[in-house]
Amino acid sequence: MAFEDRWTRGKTFTILSLFQILFVILFGIFVEYDSDAQPKHGSRGHDSLPLSTGPTYGMFQDVHVMIFIGFGFLMTFLKRYGYSAVGLNMLVAAFVLQWATLIIGFFHLNERNMIVVNMETLLTADFAAAAVLISFGAVLGKVSLVQAIIMAFFEIVVFQANEYLGLKVFKVTDVGGSMFVHAFGAYFGIAVARVLYNDELHDEIHDHHKWAPCYHSDHFSMIGTLFLWVFWPSFNSVVSATDDGRYRAVINTYFALSAGVIMSFAVSSLVDKKSRFEIDHIQNATIAAGVAVGTSADLMLHPYGSILVGCVAGAVATLGLKYLEPFLAVRMKTHDTCGVNNLHGMPGLIAGIVGAIMAALATPDIYGEESLYKTFPARTPTNLTGLNLDHLGIDPGYGRSAGTQGGYQMAALMCTLVIAVVSGILVGFILRLPIWNQPHGEHLFDDDQMWVLPEDYTGIQIKSN
Amino acid sequence: MAFEDRWTRGKTFTILSLFQILFVILFGIFVEYDSDAQPKHGSRGHDSLPLSTGPTYGMFQDVHVMIFIGFGFLMTFLKRYGYSAVGLNMLVAAFVLQWATLIIGFFHLNERNMIVVNMETLLTADFAAAAVLISFGAVLGKVSLVQAIIMAFFEIVVFQANEYLGLKVFKVTDVGGSMFVHAFGAYFGIAVARVLYNDELHDEIHDHHKWAPCYHSDHFSMIGTLFLWVFWPSFNSVVSATDDGRYRAVINTYFALSAGVIMSFAVSSLVDKKSRFEIDHIQNATIAAGVAVGTSADLMLHPYGSILVGCVAGAVATLGLKYLEPFLAVRMKTHDTCGVNNLHGMPGLIAGIVGAIMAALATPDIYGEESLYKTFPARTPTNLTGLNLDHLGIDPGYGRSAGTQGGYQMAALMCTLVIAVVSGILVGFILRLPIWNQPHGEHLFDDDQMWVLPEDYTGIQIKSN
Amino acid sequence: MAFEDRWTRGKTFTILSLFQILFVILFGIFVEYDSDAQPKHGSRGHDSLPLSTGPTYGMFQDVHVMIFIGFGFLMTFLKRYGYSAVGLNMLVAAFVLQWATLIIGFFHLNERNMIVVNMETLLTADFAAAAVLISFGAVLGKVSLVQAIIMAFFEIVVFQANEYLGLKVFKVTDVGGSMFVHAFGAYFGIAVARVLYNDELHDEIHDHHKWAPCYHSDHFSMIGTLFLWVFWPSFNSVVSATDDGRYRAVINTYFALSAGVIMSFAVSSLVDKKSRFEIDHIQNATIAAGVAVGTSADLMLHPYGSILVGCVAGAVATLGLKYLEPFLAVRMKTHDTCGVNNLHGMPGLIAGIVGAIMAALATPDIYGEESLYKTFPARTPTNLTGLNLDHLGIDPGYGRSAGTQGGYQMAALMCTLVIAVVSGILVGFILRLPIWNQPHGEHLFDDDQMWVLPEDYTGIQIKSN
Repeated sequence: MAFEDRWTRGKTFTILSLFQILFVILFGIFVEYDSDAQPKHGSRGHDSLPLSTGPTYGMFQDVHVMIFIGFGFLMTFLKRYGYSAVGLNMLVAAFVLQWATLIIGFFHLNERNMIVVNMETLLTADFAAAAVLISFGAVLGKVSLVQAIIMAFFEIVVFQANEYLGLKVFKVTDVGGSMFVHAFGAYFGIAVARVLYNDELHDEIHDHHKWAPCYHSDHFSMIGTLFLWVFWPSFNSVVSATDDGRYRAVINTYFALSAGVIMSFAVSSLVDKKSRFEIDHIQNATIAAGVAVGTSADLMLHPYGSILVGCVAGAVATLGLKYLEPFLAVRMKTHDTCGVNNLHGMPGLIAGIVGAIMAALATPDIYGEESLYKTFPARTPTNLTGLNLDHLGIDPGYGRSAGTQGGYQMAALMCTLVIAVVSGILVGFILRLPIWNQPHGEHLFDDDQMWVLPEDYTGIQIKSN
Repeated sequence: MAFEDRWTRGKTFTILSLFQILFVILFGIFVEYDSDAQPKHGSRGHDSLPLSTGPTYGMFQDVHVMIFIGFGFLMTFLKRYGYSAVGLNMLVAAFVLQWATLIIGFFHLNERNMIVVNMETLLTADFAAAAVLISFGAVLGKVSLVQAIIMAFFEIVVFQANEYLGLKVFKVTDVGGSMFVHAFGAYFGIAVARVLYNDELHDEIHDHHKWAPCYHSDHFSMIGTLFLWVFWPSFNSVVSATDDGRYRAVINTYFALSAGVIMSFAVSSLVDKKSRFEIDHIQNATIAAGVAVGTSADLMLHPYGSILVGCVAGAVATLGLKYLEPFLAVRMKTHDTCGVNNLHGMPGLIAGIVGAIMAALATPDIYGEESLYKTFPARTPTNLTGLNLDHLGIDPGYGRSAGTQGGYQMAALMCTLVIAVVSGILVGFILRLPIWNQPHGEHLFDDDQMWVLPEDYTGIQIKSN
Repeated sequence: MAFEDRWTRGKTFTILSLFQILFVILFGIFVEYDSDAQPKHGSRGHDSLPLSTGPTYGMFQDVHVMIFIGFGFLMTFLKRYGYSAVGLNMLVAAFVLQWATLIIGFFHLNERNMIVVNMETLLTADFAAAAVLISFGAVLGKVSLVQAIIMAFFEIVVFQANEYLGLKVFKVTDVGGSMFVHAFGAYFGIAVARVLYNDELHDEIHDHHKWAPCYHSDHFSMIGTLFLWVFWPSFNSVVSATDDGRYRAVINTYFALSAGVIMSFAVSSLVDKKSRFEIDHIQNATIAAGVAVGTSADLMLHPYGSILVGCVAGAVATLGLKYLEPFLAVRMKTHDTCGVNNLHGMPGLIAGIVGAIMAALATPDIYGEESLYKTFPARTPTNLTGLNLDHLGIDPGYGRSAGTQGGYQMAALMCTLVIAVVSGILVGFILRLPIWNQPHGEHLFDDDQMWVLPEDYTGIQIKSN
């Protein structure tokens, strides 16, 4: 065994093991069950989502499917990178579930300085995994396992700090995480991809054909698309602050996604000279509506508003895949493997803008005081005397106007973009350190270096090229 | 670009866009949230399925999986039509979710002449999508995208009118939609397929081999089969009028499906000279039991009755695939691509007959007055004085006898068949207009005209033929 | 038709049909709906899981997906045995759902000597199917359909007797069935595989390459892996005796599985000379943590404890796949096709040991009396006078100490192993009778004898060998 191989070998095992040992220790010191999950029947928490009532557990499982099957299979479209796509997706997600539980917990320590785990934290960790997997989509095929883990390690810290800033400091709403998960993840990943761009990658993209699907790999990818599409109503509704908001989020997402499919097909047909469809438009643009409606999914967007948002998202994502993505890759040296800018980035921007508009239009007449103040806590008056809100568990807020709330929503979106890009660039430079086994040349977009492969693997290459 | 191509190109985009614009306008004018999904806490509706209690939302998601993954992947069995199968399935379903919401809503306007959307309408639109997708299965590979959309447009109107006739006028029960969804969709689609039959199709079927699977396309198809199989108990139970009926529907469907699998394998083995199985029997006949038990799933069929129905369905569907389908294609010029007659048509007839028998056997002794009158509203006496049913929310009915109810069940089945076939023939003639880009000759059962295809696509053809 | 063929043909059909007729008769005589599923509103059962409250129905559907999609696709990794893997999985599971309902019911007859079916029995039948499918994984590709059915027929009887012994006589806890489902199923199947080992199999394994995957068959297998992984929290929690235990089981399984993924990748990398991963490690070892945490999932294992258990399981399963499995196949003549010893066997042993330790550490201080006595009924004092437990529905127990309970847990594990191996050997000898169409020579691990195959099937063989 050459020294380089031995070092590589030690590296993957060592880094994974060390992180896992770190997690055991931190979990042992800091993590405890939520009171609902403890046997003693004393005082119970009120902020957490209980397991046993309503559709929460089912929605959690839907989101879980989206993370592991949805994102995992969506990325299997590359003809020679299927094991890595679905395998690394699983590894990165499993890493984030633990790491995000810790980081999120450190931002929300309870009165005994402990981290509480409950349905809500399991869900939030899944959301955090989504952000990292979106970033991973931008660098798919261009990073080693170790790089993916290092990226996830840093990204989660920034992700959580940004989300804390948005939800707790700016006090904005983003029920489906379109700003804090999708836009953040997309632009963080794109920034990383930009920094990692090099001549080898340039040659590989332009001279070879590995960054391409085969017929059946695109079928596998559609498994991911469809599970994401079907379960997106759960993703956009599960953490809504009110029952009626959760219900609206389901309805709005359902219709936005339906309209997004129609416009994805329509525009895909329009931009092809022979009026054909491209399967990657269908794999990606059809679900962009879920992102675009995410920030305002539980607001009074009405079904027709959701449909409009879905139409715009489907059209923008398809146009982005057709025209913007090649432009970015060729001219801007920003090669985005899965096109996350089209599925998560631009739709996330749309979501943030729609959310700001809807916030600026929100009045007590439309929402009623309970829904309004639970959805936008900063709009609650500073003095609740005489308002008879005590029994609803509503605390005094900042007395913001609707317009001010809309401004904060925009500010959170802008901050998210800046933080994502800046931190992505920094992490990109960390990943450029020549110690992380970054794949080179013919090993880009190829399972061959990372996996023991079956006998027909060469045949796949020959047949397809 | 040739004129023909340009016209084609405009057509797909234009038709999809116009429909989508129409939907936005109609949703804007007519559609509003259910009171449970509105912030104000005034009077709440009682007829709708709430989001937050019981298994309803989970069942909705199960049905959603059936529509998009189940039907979508079930149809990927053709070796060269996978993109179209899963892609058009998604497009047609997304189209129907919006269009059916409107059409169903027009049949059930509220007191302000508005269309209310809630969990029940989301579910009903999914059921309507099932009907259209079943019809689509009969013409798979033989129609263009535009034809599929035009078919869906007309079919939904007839579908809803027929269901309204059955449920509201004839006042029959069909909890799993076996008559109004499965039988209707199957015979509508078969009628369309009959009208579209032509010499080119005849030649293609007999001389070439594209109407055939490859080894891995049949694997993809099994994904669809299994998700349909697993979630069918949700499909057959979710709209049951009573809690105990819903529970029975789950149990009955579970056992009927299990028995259907056994008899599908048994008969598949029996009818092959070498005692082998055919994978298309397993893909289709194993789930026919879900259809066959659908009408009576929430009735007192008992587990052994469900098993009997499942056995008959599995056997009939397998025999149909083996003997009837080739006969229909060759002698009757009725080429049914997916064999929907075997999976949805004949099992739907069985379901209707079993439902009629069960209705004719239903007595207050067996069901209790509450379950009986909620399941069969027309059996409620015309005069409720002294019956002490007010607190159950039961209104006066028609005082039908059990036998009369059974007769109405049969009448609804017969009407469904007639309406499906007649409307299917009419729509078939509309689809024969030479303006819909109907595929011809070598483009039948082939993704090549509709999709940009990867490099290995030709290889798939050569290897398989 | 040769006589042999005719006999074969009759055999498959006859055996399946006779069993199905038997089931109809037994269901007709013995099976009735649970009172919750009956229309009359008299006295209702209290022991059963109702359909309409909490996440139970959703968890049942999750488990259902695990059985039919999870196990089914997990076994499709063989390049030429995909139809059989997913098809026979479905057949065997559907057979067991009916047969186990009967056998479990005979062990739990109600006061009228009838078998009651409800959510709990549907779930329990799914668990029983898991046990048989695990055994089937050990003999995959080496038995005929008839042998699989005969094995399932006998195994269910022994499975249920062993579970009854453990749960009702020894009064141990095993919420995720790691001892009674996973360990039992694995060692029963391995014993059968050992008895069926012969020279032909030896030659096939060593000289040919059919016991191997191809690139896309491993993709299909990952569908199974991921659905098992995602839904395992439902599997391990659904039958927990208390609400807080169910909540813990979800949390513990979630974290154990996450850690298991990390350690599977780490160890897979470590044991390869080029630091690559093997996809079968990822397919199997990543989910071993779900088994290993199964017995103690609802106990006070704490998240860090769950993570530790998950780490051990992932590492042990990967090492087993790498080193133990070839040793067993070559030296011990124990060829375990899917490596169920690594995914279910050894992790099941770990689960049993962890469960015994946790039981020996359980005190009323930690669990509170309600959770403790509901989880470990035998620890309830024999005399409840003055303990004020009546309103909790707790009956007098045996007054066991914690240590004694731990001993019983170990005893149940040991008995399970002995019963599994002995009964597996006996059933193996039954399966060796030369009347069951056992596949030979080139037909091992090959769909060719059992299925009508598409034209490209030969191509798959040639290309891969």
